[in-house]
Amino acid sequence: MAFKFEVTDKSKETGARLGRIHTSHGCIETPAFIPVGTQATVKSLTPEELCGLGVQIILANTYHLYLRPGHDVIGKLGGLHRFMHWDGPILTDSGGFQVFSLSKLRKISDRGVTFQSHIDGSKHLLTPEKVIEIQETLGSDIMMCLDECTPYPATRTESQRSLELSIDWARRCRESRSQEGSALFGIVQGGMYEDLRAYGVEALTSIGFDGYALGGLSVGEPKAAMLDVAAFTLPLLPSRLPRYVMGVGAPEDLVELVSLGTDMFDCVIPTRNARNGQLFVSTGALNICNAQYRDDELPVEAGCPCYTCRHYSRAYLRHLFMAKELLAHRLNTVHNIYYFMSLMREMREAIRRGRFGRFKKNFYALRS
Amino acid sequence: MAFKFEVTDKSKETGARLGRIHTSHGCIETPAFIPVGTQATVKSLTPEELCGLGVQIILANTYHLYLRPGHDVIGKLGGLHRFMHWDGPILTDSGGFQVFSLSKLRKISDRGVTFQSHIDGSKHLLTPEKVIEIQETLGSDIMMCLDECTPYPATRTESQRSLELSIDWARRCRESRSQEGSALFGIVQGGMYEDLRAYGVEALTSIGFDGYALGGLSVGEPKAAMLDVAAFTLPLLPSRLPRYVMGVGAPEDLVELVSLGTDMFDCVIPTRNARNGQLFVSTGALNICNAQYRDDELPVEAGCPCYTCRHYSRAYLRHLFMAKELLAHRLNTVHNIYYFMSLMREMREAIRRGRFGRFKKNFYALRS
Repeated sequence: MAFKFEVTDKSKETGARLGRIHTSHGCIETPAFIPVGTQATVKSLTPEELCGLGVQIILANTYHLYLRPGHDVIGKLGGLHRFMHWDGPILTDSGGFQVFSLSKLRKISDRGVTFQSHIDGSKHLLTPEKVIEIQETLGSDIMMCLDECTPYPATRTESQRSLELSIDWARRCRESRSQEGSALFGIVQGGMYEDLRAYGVEALTSIGFDGYALGGLSVGEPKAAMLDVAAFTLPLLPSRLPRYVMGVGAPEDLVELVSLGTDMFDCVIPTRNARNGQLFVSTGALNICNAQYRDDELPVEAGCPCYTCRHYSRAYLRHLFMAKELLAHRLNTVHNIYYFMSLMREMREAIRRGRFGRFKKNFYALRS
Repeated sequence: MAFKFEVTDKSKETGARLGRIHTSHGCIETPAFIPVGTQATVKSLTPEELCGLGVQIILANTYHLYLRPGHDVIGKLGGLHRFMHWDGPILTDSGGFQVFSLSKLRKISDRGVTFQSHIDGSKHLLTPEKVIEIQETLGSDIMMCLDECTPYPATRTESQRSLELSIDWARRCRESRSQEGSALFGIVQGGMYEDLRAYGVEALTSIGFDGYALGGLSVGEPKAAMLDVAAFTLPLLPSRLPRYVMGVGAPEDLVELVSLGTDMFDCVIPTRNARNGQLFVSTGALNICNAQYRDDELPVEAGCPCYTCRHYSRAYLRHLFMAKELLAHRLNTVHNIYYFMSLMREMREAIRRGRFGRFKKNFYALRS
């Protein structure tokens, strides 16, 4: 089935909305959180486990897969879904963000961006056309345009130059796409400048994409600035298409951004923090390496129905973590992904029942 | 149910035998291979997965659990089974081997062995009485006596002195046990000296244990010497009790030692080698990091029904391994444990059907 988005319900008190994205690999109930599977695996978990945790869609990193094992290898083996044994929807980023955050000696020209691999130092050129070719070879369900992630802080001039480049690259991505099965999303940059964000929205919507993302957020700016930019920009995006805030975020960010009308998120927080021993609970988070859990027989969160909480004590999880056991990563990741999926499900349910305002109030009350 | 062993079938052509060990946590079909769960976890896998792979019993290391999180903590939390969510049988070693292989500044006296923790350098004294207390607190189903693992090479005098110490410690272990639910096995040392091995068997059987292990094998001696010692010593052990060869081994060692009448094995080979990328197949082993697997769409072993082989290509496994992904350890471990469990099952079936000789011939034919 071709890509399609429908809004099925709206919160009256907030900008929150309920929807459904259709892809050829299945449906995604929105607002949706997308766990990150950088190297064709959501670290430590199997696809069956992701499915059981309620994960609807995963993100894979084009930059990483292009460098290793190579998109050609994945293409030859039947595409990313088959390669990694995940038959649900996959969103691939463009690789742009990783070029700027991971690689060395990058050089930007009108043509694209030249960089050195963080793995073996080899030189590569990514162009807008190339990132579309890579994502199409991977068999992505939702592709992202190559963009330059404007850093924070950036002057108005820098932000504008960067935005113009991203718009130009977005146009070239749009022109070079060949498959009709894959959706292509534009990414709005513009730094912390409202008029630039507005200009970005205008330019990208006039090119026309299947959905729009806000980029350049959660890059070091104060949380209030992030929310201000989102609050200003999200309403400018076409309401009939999905709105995606990239790289965000913590549970409270998700609640605020859903409230502002965001439909999609991706972030490494649940998975990375799990591997660092930070476990999310309704009252906030706990750090499992804390000595107080040494002989604590309670689960991470009482009443949590996830596999980890059903079978293991904080004491056992602390032991695994302190002993650097591989199972620690798994069990912690299971809990955190469950927490995030459950949070999204509760938000969707609250929107459906016209109770999103009450949900928000309750969410914060538990944390205070 | 109290500990009980029964021999249910015998190979006519070899010394191989089929049996069943009963413990209060369930039955073990023998010959059995025991995966190692050093720190209260078989690295990277859940108990449900172990169960699904056909694992009947696991081994946990007393030395590691005594040091971290402490047997007191595990005891307080209801014992090792509950702590790690494994309700099948557990065999615990005595910690002796690890004191000699992992810790520093060890000093042996008649009383016991003093050593420094490999984790924090703290000083500890393990005595025969203490290792029984620890294993009973853990709630072990099969406890092992404290012994000194005679190194290789060792002179006759060294081997004899070491054997005498182990016999003395075994007597003290026997005297200090309090629970009738847990079985206690003696460990025959004696180095590479047949008369010492025979003397060890005599001394230990006159003390009386629920089963007997051969220790001090697979410690650097030539494989032929290991098999010679086993071939000499195993027939001296009481045939009505389980015979356990500790720390062995590779698939071909298992086949040879089953042929000589061994009922139990434990070894880190399937799990450790998995984490190093070595995968066992009927023709031997393959190293998944080999470049030839870069775009190999075949499973590790064609026809293998394990989860890994059913869903993933060698190319994907190689990618995960090269990218140092956590899932690599899991998927490789699943395959290797399946291979070992399957090998043991095939041997049991061959003994049952009076075809162990044919099985052995076929096993070697596939590898040549």
